[in-house]
Amino acid sequence: MLRSIVLLCCAPMIFAQTAEIEKILKDSEAAWNRGDLKSFASYYEDSPETTFIGREVVHGGVQAILERYRRAYPTREAMGTLAFSEIAVRPLAGGVALATGKFTLHRSAAAGGEASGRFTLILKRTPSGWKIIHDHTS
Amino acid sequence: MLRSIVLLCCAPMIFAQTAEIEKILKDSEAAWNRGDLKSFASYYEDSPETTFIGREVVHGGVQAILERYRRAYPTREAMGTLAFSEIAVRPLAGGVALATGKFTLHRSAAAGGEASGRFTLILKRTPSGWKIIHDHTS
Repeated sequence: MLRSIVLLCCAPMIFAQTAEIEKILKDSEAAWNRGDLKSFASYYEDSPETTFIGREVVHGGVQAILERYRRAYPTREAMGTLAFSEIAVRPLAGGVALATGKFTLHRSAAAGGEASGRFTLILKRTPSGWKIIHDHTS
Repeated sequence: MLRSIVLLCCAPMIFAQTAEIEKILKDSEAAWNRGDLKSFASYYEDSPETTFIGREVVHGGVQAILERYRRAYPTREAMGTLAFSEIAVRPLAGGVALATGKFTLHRSAAAGGEASGRFTLILKRTPSGWKIIHDHTS
């Protein structure tokens, strides 16, 4: 019964989540495309529990995530132009959501060439907005 | 305030989740290692919303997931011996959890050779037990 009450109370909140998270992704894409990795990393929760599974596994907050991106994309050219697509947001509970999608990195051959892949993000609503608590990108 | 009440009520449930999910992973590993793909696929939620991100993206229930595994692992030899390791379970809410870990597939060179990678699972408690609603494996 508690679950039903919670679901009823949280339903409007859950539906609003999708738009909020789509905005986060748009904003983080824009941050990337102005070369602002610091702002891009700020969308991750600044907590030792935050995890990133990519070619390597990173545990840690904003600084650890930022360093990972700086290692992987050492120059503005290597960052290229990022575009997210096929984004799907699924509410998991009030204040917790799953977002999946595709990323494409448009780059010159000299900068590493075109790249693309898929991501799974788990986001949590925090006092400072929605934050990514887990990222699996491949 | 509602969130605090819910968290208080759900805390014991959340702690019990970890052990239950670790058992699911052990059981699914055992199903794989006796060549029982049908049982392995039954740990996914039988819903059109279930998603699997691997080399391809699969949307669909148990049958769609089973067909994906049958395509990727057409023979008992190709399935090899599966071992999960570095498993970490993080509760996301009452009845929803994140599980991450590493998989290793021990296989003869003729059957495709050793393989390994990382997985992100989102699991939901359902009337028929914990089920995977999203899998990202790379």
